[in-house]
Amino acid sequence: MKIIRTVAEMQRTSEELRLQQKHIGIVPTMGYLHDGHASLIRAIRQEVEIVVTSIFVNPTQFGPSEDFSTYPRDLARDEHIAQQAGTDIVFYPDAKEMYPDGFKTYVSTDTVATILEGKFRPTHFRGVTTVVAKLFNIVKPHMAIFGQKDVQQAFILRQMVRDLNFDVRVIIAPIVREPDGLALSSRNVYLNPQERKDATALFRSLKLAEELIGAGERDAARVREEMERLIQSVNPTQIDYIAFLDPDSFEETRRILPRTLVALAVRFGSTRLLDNAIVDSK
Amino acid sequence: MKIIRTVAEMQRTSEELRLQQKHIGIVPTMGYLHDGHASLIRAIRQEVEIVVTSIFVNPTQFGPSEDFSTYPRDLARDEHIAQQAGTDIVFYPDAKEMYPDGFKTYVSTDTVATILEGKFRPTHFRGVTTVVAKLFNIVKPHMAIFGQKDVQQAFILRQMVRDLNFDVRVIIAPIVREPDGLALSSRNVYLNPQERKDATALFRSLKLAEELIGAGERDAARVREEMERLIQSVNPTQIDYIAFLDPDSFEETRRILPRTLVALAVRFGSTRLLDNAIVDSK
Repeated sequence: MKIIRTVAEMQRTSEELRLQQKHIGIVPTMGYLHDGHASLIRAIRQEVEIVVTSIFVNPTQFGPSEDFSTYPRDLARDEHIAQQAGTDIVFYPDAKEMYPDGFKTYVSTDTVATILEGKFRPTHFRGVTTVVAKLFNIVKPHMAIFGQKDVQQAFILRQMVRDLNFDVRVIIAPIVREPDGLALSSRNVYLNPQERKDATALFRSLKLAEELIGAGERDAARVREEMERLIQSVNPTQIDYIAFLDPDSFEETRRILPRTLVALAVRFGSTRLLDNAIVDSK
Repeated sequence: MKIIRTVAEMQRTSEELRLQQKHIGIVPTMGYLHDGHASLIRAIRQEVEIVVTSIFVNPTQFGPSEDFSTYPRDLARDEHIAQQAGTDIVFYPDAKEMYPDGFKTYVSTDTVATILEGKFRPTHFRGVTTVVAKLFNIVKPHMAIFGQKDVQQAFILRQMVRDLNFDVRVIIAPIVREPDGLALSSRNVYLNPQERKDATALFRSLKLAEELIGAGERDAARVREEMERLIQSVNPTQIDYIAFLDPDSFEETRRILPRTLVALAVRFGSTRLLDNAIVDSK
């Protein structure tokens, strides 16, 4: 496995690989890899000859009061996990390499970027779309994989790829969970033992939503109420949102649809956890 | 010469050409080609094996009260000029192909996009950077050429290419002028005979600036005054700006620099004309 730290070397390498007709897949990450990332690497490994895992804690997707400086970092461990899962190249630039002085260009999507996560993190998605556009131009992949855990991010990135005509096939991989249901996240390390235990409430509330919808409930507000009650029973710091959406348009819905995306964000202390599920009602 | 109208065919064609190690150059235009465009095509023709001239009147770079619907169009004539100058492929998509329903993603640069042209045309440069980013992803060029006539556009596109890591070499080609000095522009056809004659005032004012600076004038305000006097003598509808800038930073300057970009925009009726020159003071 090769580690590349500069844009120029990564572009040169990718260009050569493309000329050799090798198909390249990218797994964009912020590092501190866990089994969720490993599952993305293993999945794209099946599809392409060359897997590039990028590791970059992207400053432009953090708000001023967020955890950019404390976001967990451990390159040695990341290298090991990336290699074990089947990475050929780790692209590991520093912030100056990605955002040199005088950086001024952003990629942004309207509308969907201002609801749910975008409401709580106003410049977050602009940072995500900008860095992914850059990574696409640097790594020149044929394919990219993102996790379903960050479902709004996946939706927005698909929109960006379509709108800007990136010739990159995007695949979305399912959420990987701990045995007790907690969705894997690099931020789970922030949780103290009690919070870690309570955090299963997100997954349990999604299972409850599935049950209620399976039993015939079609009023999203009533499903939300029951989910809230379950989550409030573990005394989280705050429920940021519990949303019911059309997974194809990302529009919120009051009625349960044949396929409904149920997405939520809950804070325990200063740790924000996300989870979601697509629930079929027939 | 081939005409391609869909994104999918253009991407497939470019991908095949790249795999054959052909170097691709793009000349992005809005059509109604003139000798200025032809000079861009001829210049890039020297550098690459395949020249793609895109012809697309880009709706997102026109303001609501601007001339999008009346912008001159003549494909048959454009085809002839493009071919004569050495184009291999004309990429000629329609608006639905470039901006399908639900389009929501924009590329924009901060700061420089809000001065001069950006002040008079607030969403103009966002439209330009967005469509050029799309064209780069569709045509997959190794090189792109833009005209010095739209100097702020050229500056912003260079910034975009650098910031988003497009692996595209950008070259800027000199302004092509009529024998009497008027910079070529597709919009010159809007001018009535009297306006056409008066329009040489832009070029004459730039020559005057050169003379004054050559004679030792270092106060930009005084050079501007003399340029204004010259232009006002032909009674234009409005002088939008006469600006003195550092060509490397695009920052306005009060003192004449060793190299000063003098840029101006003047209206005759509803026709806005641009011109500029880089003036050396030593």
